[in-house]
Amino acid sequence: MGEPQKTAETEYSTKGAYVTGEEFTRDTNYIEDRVVADVDAVTAAPREESSSIGDPRARGLTENAEAWPVEPGRYRLVAARACPWAHRSIIIRRLLGLEEAISLATPGPVHDARSWTFDLTDDGRDPVLGTERLQENYFARFPDYPRGITVPALVDVPSGGVVTNNYPQLTLDLSTQWKEHHRQGAPDLLPEDLVDDMLPVIKRIFTEVNNGVYRAGFAGSQKAYEEAYDRLFTALDWLEERLADRRYLMGDTITEADVRLFTTLVRFDAVYHGHFKCNRNKLTEMPNLWGYARDLFQTPGFGDTVDFDQIKAHYYVVHEDINPTQVVPVGPDLQNWLSDHGREKLGGSPFGEGTAPGPVAPEERPPGANPLY
Amino acid sequence: MGEPQKTAETEYSTKGAYVTGEEFTRDTNYIEDRVVADVDAVTAAPREESSSIGDPRARGLTENAEAWPVEPGRYRLVAARACPWAHRSIIIRRLLGLEEAISLATPGPVHDARSWTFDLTDDGRDPVLGTERLQENYFARFPDYPRGITVPALVDVPSGGVVTNNYPQLTLDLSTQWKEHHRQGAPDLLPEDLVDDMLPVIKRIFTEVNNGVYRAGFAGSQKAYEEAYDRLFTALDWLEERLADRRYLMGDTITEADVRLFTTLVRFDAVYHGHFKCNRNKLTEMPNLWGYARDLFQTPGFGDTVDFDQIKAHYYVVHEDINPTQVVPVGPDLQNWLSDHGREKLGGSPFGEGTAPGPVAPEERPPGANPLY
Repeated sequence: MGEPQKTAETEYSTKGAYVTGEEFTRDTNYIEDRVVADVDAVTAAPREESSSIGDPRARGLTENAEAWPVEPGRYRLVAARACPWAHRSIIIRRLLGLEEAISLATPGPVHDARSWTFDLTDDGRDPVLGTERLQENYFARFPDYPRGITVPALVDVPSGGVVTNNYPQLTLDLSTQWKEHHRQGAPDLLPEDLVDDMLPVIKRIFTEVNNGVYRAGFAGSQKAYEEAYDRLFTALDWLEERLADRRYLMGDTITEADVRLFTTLVRFDAVYHGHFKCNRNKLTEMPNLWGYARDLFQTPGFGDTVDFDQIKAHYYVVHEDINPTQVVPVGPDLQNWLSDHGREKLGGSPFGEGTAPGPVAPEERPPGANPLY
Repeated sequence: MGEPQKTAETEYSTKGAYVTGEEFTRDTNYIEDRVVADVDAVTAAPREESSSIGDPRARGLTENAEAWPVEPGRYRLVAARACPWAHRSIIIRRLLGLEEAISLATPGPVHDARSWTFDLTDDGRDPVLGTERLQENYFARFPDYPRGITVPALVDVPSGGVVTNNYPQLTLDLSTQWKEHHRQGAPDLLPEDLVDDMLPVIKRIFTEVNNGVYRAGFAGSQKAYEEAYDRLFTALDWLEERLADRRYLMGDTITEADVRLFTTLVRFDAVYHGHFKCNRNKLTEMPNLWGYARDLFQTPGFGDTVDFDQIKAHYYVVHEDINPTQVVPVGPDLQNWLSDHGREKLGGSPFGEGTAPGPVAPEERPPGANPLY
């Protein structure tokens, strides 16, 4: 996510979010358009409530949102590898085999005060969109766009305008609306019989873990930090216990919930432990979570999308307010991500009746540090 | 250590040290007076060279230094529990049983730009010296004292003036010059037959580890930091190997070298790993060093002098330039310092033919977090 904009009403910070008093509060107002299989049906359905975790069963649109048609080749997913909220969509796109249907643009890790930028290419422009800054694509849709320029963003290639940056719903719609274009053997990440149980898990992971690390790192006082730290580790203890006898969060196969937890866990020791002071212990010191995280890392579609260099550069360079030297740590050592996790003994099979995705296309390989490459 | 002063010649930083170009360089100019058993002999001996690690065999004084007589009750050791350089002297005083002979003043962890302060007492004054700031005791000796107001400092109680702040020599002199006042059973921390082998070990620990963590934390550029990180972990790997088959650094009993390494190790996961970005791994991830550090921590005289709250408060609050929020981390969890270290299997006996010191006097107990209390 993460881009600052100031409006008359709200003071946005450099984290795509605002601070209310001392506690960090994430801005959860997004462009909530959806790309759907049946535009007419979705447009005709009753309006839905906005949801911070999305809704896999949403039949309609939220207030003021519009529906766009599923159409292979039409949309470009702009997702910085550094950003955990964007990382979700990179993983899901790959697990479902949507690489051909939705192309991928990866802005560099170090955005400036205005926008994520396409600075990893030779000429500093995205080769498909032709823009230098993602902000241009927001402005192509809304010339006065007042909020943060966040990733992930799904861009309509013909018009160059952003269709949605509503990341909680985006990955769910990749599962539910793009079914016709999934690869053969794509896993069902939202199994019908598990959704009721999954949503509270996803919700708690969002508020306590995904967002919990930010609440600790951006706390405006010692008290706010300590409360955030307690909330975070209470939730991690809950997950540690939950994963003692479950291979994955919802049981024997990977689901959307695992993707949402993984993107925080893979950043934990590299960034959150030190930079955000989430330091009761490292992830490596929680045996079940660490085994689980390695299990996922070593599963095609997860670890092969990770770029530890971009992840570290993003947090340590962009957050000058908490790391004024902008020095990026060399550690931690990453080889342990490939060590035996021993989770097979819990049974299960990551893709259920489906299959693993093939290797990452060479042009989509993360360019930075990753022990898999 | 640690207090800033500016002179015409040298730009001092807030770390009792100065920065030359991008690499952190410690200021090693101190008040090199000595308190000795035989003032006349030491005064008459040829002048010695200054040494960054001190010299246990030094018979004379360095240039411009004076000799003071050993005299129980005359001197007060001013040593902040937060500071690793001062912490050495607290441990050695206790191991040798010099509590009666040399009283202890402990300034609080959070000094300001001018001085360590006696802010842990009710009235903000040291009860013996009567001063609020250690700076007053420096000025009582040298009214224009131009350098950092550092700890440890040995103060002459009658005059209120600082005798020496030359920490490398101070602890050695506690062993060699104060012998007559050691407790019965005090260990020999500088065994005659080991000194030749010990000095290069102490030297490498000083330049690469004690000071190495600061070199990483205060590096003025990414390049300087990365070089410092490599130097530090090269030395820690050397120590990890050295301690594989040795209970203590020099063999079967504790020596001065162990005290000098311990004060850095005990701060490693609490401060240096995150705050100074020494994060290839935690101390807990180096089995021999971690076993060794716990072995010492659980040995009377070591762990019972540690105040984790003061240690963390010092670094995270004072170094506003690298932690502008001044938020102090809650972690890491400390209970593991009491876990079984298994080092007895290497044989040896910490105090050799001596004995362990008794319990810490109630009034000298560290007031902050310590799993022993």
